[in-house]
Amino acid sequence: MRAAIFRQGDFTVDRIPDPVLAEGQVLVRTRACGICGSDLHAAKYTDAFVDVARRSGGRFQMVKDRDVVFGHEFVGEVVENGPGTEGRFRPGTLVTSMPLTIAGQRVEGVGYNPDVPGAFAEYLPLAERMLLPLPEGMEPDHAALVEPMAVGVHAVAFGRTTPEDVALVIGCGPIGLAVIAALKLQGIAPVIAADFSPARRALAQRMGADIVVDPAAASPYAALDRAITPAGFDGSRYAQLLGLSPRRRPAVVFECVGMPGVMQQVFEQAPPGARIVIVGVCMEPDRFEPFFGIVKQLNVQFVLGYTAEEFAATLGHIGAGRIDVAPLITGRVGLEGVRQAFQDLANPERHAKVLVEPWR
Amino acid sequence: MRAAIFRQGDFTVDRIPDPVLAEGQVLVRTRACGICGSDLHAAKYTDAFVDVARRSGGRFQMVKDRDVVFGHEFVGEVVENGPGTEGRFRPGTLVTSMPLTIAGQRVEGVGYNPDVPGAFAEYLPLAERMLLPLPEGMEPDHAALVEPMAVGVHAVAFGRTTPEDVALVIGCGPIGLAVIAALKLQGIAPVIAADFSPARRALAQRMGADIVVDPAAASPYAALDRAITPAGFDGSRYAQLLGLSPRRRPAVVFECVGMPGVMQQVFEQAPPGARIVIVGVCMEPDRFEPFFGIVKQLNVQFVLGYTAEEFAATLGHIGAGRIDVAPLITGRVGLEGVRQAFQDLANPERHAKVLVEPWR
Repeated sequence: MRAAIFRQGDFTVDRIPDPVLAEGQVLVRTRACGICGSDLHAAKYTDAFVDVARRSGGRFQMVKDRDVVFGHEFVGEVVENGPGTEGRFRPGTLVTSMPLTIAGQRVEGVGYNPDVPGAFAEYLPLAERMLLPLPEGMEPDHAALVEPMAVGVHAVAFGRTTPEDVALVIGCGPIGLAVIAALKLQGIAPVIAADFSPARRALAQRMGADIVVDPAAASPYAALDRAITPAGFDGSRYAQLLGLSPRRRPAVVFECVGMPGVMQQVFEQAPPGARIVIVGVCMEPDRFEPFFGIVKQLNVQFVLGYTAEEFAATLGHIGAGRIDVAPLITGRVGLEGVRQAFQDLANPERHAKVLVEPWR
Repeated sequence: MRAAIFRQGDFTVDRIPDPVLAEGQVLVRTRACGICGSDLHAAKYTDAFVDVARRSGGRFQMVKDRDVVFGHEFVGEVVENGPGTEGRFRPGTLVTSMPLTIAGQRVEGVGYNPDVPGAFAEYLPLAERMLLPLPEGMEPDHAALVEPMAVGVHAVAFGRTTPEDVALVIGCGPIGLAVIAALKLQGIAPVIAADFSPARRALAQRMGADIVVDPAAASPYAALDRAITPAGFDGSRYAQLLGLSPRRRPAVVFECVGMPGVMQQVFEQAPPGARIVIVGVCMEPDRFEPFFGIVKQLNVQFVLGYTAEEFAATLGHIGAGRIDVAPLITGRVGLEGVRQAFQDLANPERHAKVLVEPWR
């Protein structure tokens, strides 16, 4: 089959062996697959990605000197039920899945794994028990957005967000936009979103953000302070110590940038008692001053991925139109266009989510 | 009155003006005051302490070029009720207080404040409304331990610790020991405590630690892993993904060292899903790799101080013998001995808590 192969730091479109189905696997013809920020990172900073992934427990199996086929945000069509399957899905059924496959009793990641091609290829060997059929009438390509949207759903849930909270989302790339959508689904208001890019701020509004802020023009934290502070609030130490002031609403900050230095900015500017949910995947070492966290008694929740239940629920939300992902799809390329798309995605004015269509 | 004055990086014993009581204040004769790790830090790294304290919101009012009298873990005796007091405490009453005083409607910190002497001095101007009388029959000097012990009580409560948890305490200085005592008071078991010092490990056992570990000889995190892992646990990704394994107990790690680099160690070695409570007060910038937190979905709760309720409850716990602080008191000095005590406290084999007795 054809695949966009990441080899020695660059992309090549070439043929690789067709998947051989293991026990419990289904052959799925890839229809579309999103390009993720982590793909960009793995391509640009391969050594650092491989190193930190290995040292932190081997969740991503990528190694430096072997070809890898990226692609973990996919939708496809069942082609063939393999050995030991129950035949739950007829050929032609549109499906998605968490980016894992099961071969017998071995679980394999899909997307950063030299042993299993990701979805920038024509076919995928997926686990029947993990396949989710698309709801009736759903626009098929929207299922490629389930994976990133599920990250937002998980971040909001794992971050213990409640309707009491005021939320600030720092960074409105696909993950920040997913968090905004998930916050609005939970009835959080106001949701404040900050991004330097006008196009990204417009998308944040489309996804439901109540207030958007250009950090070059105004402080998102000042907007957060205003939103949490009730009339008659008295911040003096006397009033606070003796409980004489009405309370501020709890603040939760979603860090969706994933670059070194952002956490320190949040530490310096977040209000006392804030919860910070780290959704951006920063793969470099970071520097910060713990004393800001201490003085403010901040809480930092790191999150990754989603549960199987959250993934399935997100498919339901998108299928039913409770999350509208259409505005996020800003481009489509075939396998030959992957290299260029990785470059184009650096420009937030131009793109949010680019779909790779291997059969295009 | 006489005081141990911190001036230009060194201690001098000299006379300073007696406190002048403001509205609502009571004159208290200092009986004893503990030396805190933060005092050592403020004395040794004054510039950094002053700088980060100022930038992080001014909770500590210390400035570089003015004299300051440290001392915020105190017990004393009421001497005189000042203007506007209700006379709730007769002269001779033994009292303690959170290290804050109120002058009219102005709240002042006690202990790092050039405008208000701390308790390394003969007298304190305290707020009547914040004074707590010692319970009947309590050994008076033990009330000087209420402040550090309350830090442990607060850390355990604010860290959302439940009897489900297994706790690991990293660092068994006075704050680590306070955390151990508070954990045992909440019925947490096992409590694992780690410190390089044999004397500190012995104190950890006295405070109730179930397992003590010398990190030079064995990994405290391996002990934690054993304690949270049930029989029949299957950590394979297959078993985890499909929910085929019994669950591990939740793990909570109390960081009670407060030095750069410790958080990264915890990030590398804590089990997935661990909660980390940062009780140690690190005043330098720190470096860590967020990716470990992300992959493990760690939670980091920074804590500081205690509430008024926690402070009062801690006095009750010590007074009733539910927390035994006697083993922690390893030395007593007069004002002239403060300088030497600050040096001696660098040796964990020799000291845990040194009490300053200004009238000694």
